[in-house]
Amino acid sequence: MKKRVAVLAGDGIGKEVTNAATAVLDTIGRRFHHEFEWVHGLLGGDALDQAGHPIPEETIRKCEESDAILLGAIGGPKWDHYPKELRPEKGLLQLRKHFELSVNLRPVQAYKTLLSSSPLKEEVAEGVDLVFVRELTGGLYFGEPSYHTDEEAVDTLIYKREEIERVVRFAFELAKQRNKKVSSVDKANVLESSRLWRKIVEEIAADYPDVEYEHMLVDSTSMKLITSPASFDVIVTENMFGDILSDEASVICGSLGMLPSASLRADGFGLYEPVHGSAPDIAGQNKANPLGAILSGAMMLRTAFGMNQEANAIEEAVKKVLEAGFSTGEFKTHGGKVLTTTEMTEKVINEIESEL
Amino acid sequence: MKKRVAVLAGDGIGKEVTNAATAVLDTIGRRFHHEFEWVHGLLGGDALDQAGHPIPEETIRKCEESDAILLGAIGGPKWDHYPKELRPEKGLLQLRKHFELSVNLRPVQAYKTLLSSSPLKEEVAEGVDLVFVRELTGGLYFGEPSYHTDEEAVDTLIYKREEIERVVRFAFELAKQRNKKVSSVDKANVLESSRLWRKIVEEIAADYPDVEYEHMLVDSTSMKLITSPASFDVIVTENMFGDILSDEASVICGSLGMLPSASLRADGFGLYEPVHGSAPDIAGQNKANPLGAILSGAMMLRTAFGMNQEANAIEEAVKKVLEAGFSTGEFKTHGGKVLTTTEMTEKVINEIESEL
Ligand SMILES: CC(C)[C@H](C(=O)O)[C@@H](O)C(=O)O
Ligand SMILES: CC(C)[C@H](C(=O)O)[C@@H](O)C(=O)O
Repeated sequence: MKKRVAVLAGDGIGKEVTNAATAVLDTIGRRFHHEFEWVHGLLGGDALDQAGHPIPEETIRKCEESDAILLGAIGGPKWDHYPKELRPEKGLLQLRKHFELSVNLRPVQAYKTLLSSSPLKEEVAEGVDLVFVRELTGGLYFGEPSYHTDEEAVDTLIYKREEIERVVRFAFELAKQRNKKVSSVDKANVLESSRLWRKIVEEIAADYPDVEYEHMLVDSTSMKLITSPASFDVIVTENMFGDILSDEASVICGSLGMLPSASLRADGFGLYEPVHGSAPDIAGQNKANPLGAILSGAMMLRTAFGMNQEANAIEEAVKKVLEAGFSTGEFKTHGGKVLTTTEMTEKVINEIESEL
Repeated sequence: MKKRVAVLAGDGIGKEVTNAATAVLDTIGRRFHHEFEWVHGLLGGDALDQAGHPIPEETIRKCEESDAILLGAIGGPKWDHYPKELRPEKGLLQLRKHFELSVNLRPVQAYKTLLSSSPLKEEVAEGVDLVFVRELTGGLYFGEPSYHTDEEAVDTLIYKREEIERVVRFAFELAKQRNKKVSSVDKANVLESSRLWRKIVEEIAADYPDVEYEHMLVDSTSMKLITSPASFDVIVTENMFGDILSDEASVICGSLGMLPSASLRADGFGLYEPVHGSAPDIAGQNKANPLGAILSGAMMLRTAFGMNQEANAIEEAVKKVLEAGFSTGEFKTHGGKVLTTTEMTEKVINEIESEL
């Protein structure tokens, strides 16, 4: 197959980790006879510096002409003083809204070799294999009115039925292919939006008699994610709760640097990015963990292009490199062998080559 | 001193734990020559069953005529089918609003003997000594419009300057008496209300040059509470973020059953309650951990009545009982000696008697 991918490296370590991902994907391309065309575009603070806007028209166009988007990371203190409309984050939010990337997927898996780096006791983190399905283009993030004066501030949490239906149905479909359990998170004892959410979950659940489901309150969920994270399979929730809880869950596995994510439109078009930020403190030092970006590349192969074997090859290679005791130093594996970003990338590539 | 306290036992284990607290406080009264008058009132599901409303007029009146409120716990599946306006939680929310209990204090402390029961590694949880200052009568909890139809739902996050000022100033005052650090939590890269919040924090911080402060995003905070909880001192945030994050932090110390809380009005009048819920599954079995309620009693003595020595006596006694290896069984101490609710209460009382 021939696929065109828009690569938006963004800020900080974004360039290093997307370079790592495309290098790994090129190896896959050679081995499986696919051709990936990388179309580079500006986003975030970098775009602000070079083109005066966090998401220039040209970037949007490049994404529109591509089969998927691969993103690095955006933001940094350098651009904090810009007015809201020009902040790097705004570029990301506009990208999500423009492409209607309404379903955000964030898997969290406990890798055995990383358990010693988890803040949780090993027996608590062991066996974690969950995925967040977060609504990404509604709720408090985009609701109007949203303003502040010197005396008062207002934000609006608004959801339309179809926005809720879309993400909830996605969660049930996903659970069907996994461990058949959906935990729907809301605050139905306080919020009206949660009451509509709960009602729609009940309706959709009726279509999936083989999938077990539960309603959980957001405050209890924030506890249970820490006390028994291995009890979850698919967790579905609205935008702001998803932001907070998925970040909370991301520390379970021992390194944020490991985690991939996907943000999808209803027709399957999507954006793939590591969960970690732009880490300006280590940018340009060849120290960043490229595995989050590399695993995001694997998610793209599977989800966007239906390349299951190819995605598996990457994921297996990453597992083997970790099991061999390698890391980029932000977590300690039993072996304790610390690699640079480029060395880690080569290790993964060599592993793929030798597997096949 | 003579003090009148409204005791709202509420539902489930609420009666058992408030009985424990008042028994301990009576001991303090005898020893320090205070007189506590307990005025019992109905709240929550119990009030719904007995008086047809989750917070009857009479309960409000009793609270108004008292110097403080001591609460057990409310809610349970038994009342889940009631319409929103009659649910037990509504009783609690109305109580907060009626008495303008706008500042919620939730301290979290790591007790050495409980570290083995924490889901966190002992070295991560060790030394935790933080307190949440949560805004309790504003934001999404009370903002209008708030409604849902079958097609759409809206909630409103609204804050007035003085609501933010009040709670932020409280946090800085508290930090001054503690470790002189305030972490203010918001989502300023997305929410307008957070931008006003941040601005007000800066203004108030200027009055406290000896208190260090930082702005943190709610998503990063949910991670840092798990990866380095001991780095926090005072955490101040708005209502919904506070609900989620303070519950998250409550699991650090190994047992939810240990944690007290206070909800205060500007003039110091307040409601004191354990953080745990009504636990209907163990209600009436003499199994509940009474320490959260007992420590809430200690907070009441210190905060409402200025009885510092008396509060210290309770807290010291609880520490000694824990160090001696006793628990009510929901967490394992090194000694592993499991007591009933009433036995645990007696242990604390004996410890106070022998201390003095
Ligand atoms: C950068 C920010 C606007 C964004 C969000 O809150 O959605 C980020 O935290 C995320 O989760 O992708
Ligand atoms: C019972 C519920 C309405 C309440 C809240 O959300 O404030 C509870 O979770 C709390 O934190 O006291």
